[in-house]
Amino acid sequence: MGLVIVTHGGSGACLLSAAAEIVGAIEAAASIGVVVGEDFGDIVRRVAHACDGVDSGAGILILVDVHGSSEFQACLAMVDGTRPVEIVCGVNLPMLIKLATVDRRHLLPAEIADVLKEVGRRSIRLGSELTGKVLTHAGEPR
Amino acid sequence: MGLVIVTHGGSGACLLSAAAEIVGAIEAAASIGVVVGEDFGDIVRRVAHACDGVDSGAGILILVDVHGSSEFQACLAMVDGTRPVEIVCGVNLPMLIKLATVDRRHLLPAEIADVLKEVGRRSIRLGSELTGKVLTHAGEPR
Repeated sequence: MGLVIVTHGGSGACLLSAAAEIVGAIEAAASIGVVVGEDFGDIVRRVAHACDGVDSGAGILILVDVHGSSEFQACLAMVDGTRPVEIVCGVNLPMLIKLATVDRRHLLPAEIADVLKEVGRRSIRLGSELTGKVLTHAGEPR
Repeated sequence: MGLVIVTHGGSGACLLSAAAEIVGAIEAAASIGVVVGEDFGDIVRRVAHACDGVDSGAGILILVDVHGSSEFQACLAMVDGTRPVEIVCGVNLPMLIKLATVDRRHLLPAEIADVLKEVGRRSIRLGSELTGKVLTHAGEPR
């Protein structure tokens, strides 16, 4: 199963690099950085080209930064019935780290997407939840 | 209230740039990109320097990519009782976009952190939840 990350600007490439340093390179993965004002058809063509490049026949998981954006709309254009596709919005680094331990060979994109959604949501936590020592006022424990 | 984003590599700077293009520049914000193998004391010093640079007296909100990392530990070192601080782990772009509509002048870091945690979690959604048209097998609606 191939992975494509679609973001405003270069954060997708940075996320892939960071994940590679932490858990090792993620295979069959590509990133697309969309430029402000880019033609929508051009975005769709670039995302489609990236999907073709990483799909070995088991489908595509697309991670995108913000739902409702033109990038997201371009990702939706990949859901055209030609292969299994699922999209996860709100990409963050813990999702990519999780990919290192998910067996991408035996799961459908939609199954891996469910896992990443839960991992991504659980990863969003407050420092005070993890330590109990965050302060709201100088010197005064919360 | 100041904002500091601490990430593995350059994704924090990319996220700030992307947010600036979407909702306008986020004021009093800085990003720190941690390099693999960087000395922990150096990370702490860089994060502290960034916090000093953006804190106008109302405290600091720190957004970090992964909890449990050395970056996260360096962020925790900022919670030393000298000013209000809260940390949100699992940073993603929707959190930064939300910051454009949150009144940072009248909320404590911990209050804004609660808002961003919820926004970040809610932003992590599947394409199929948003459209109902994602396919698990080619040509076969889910």
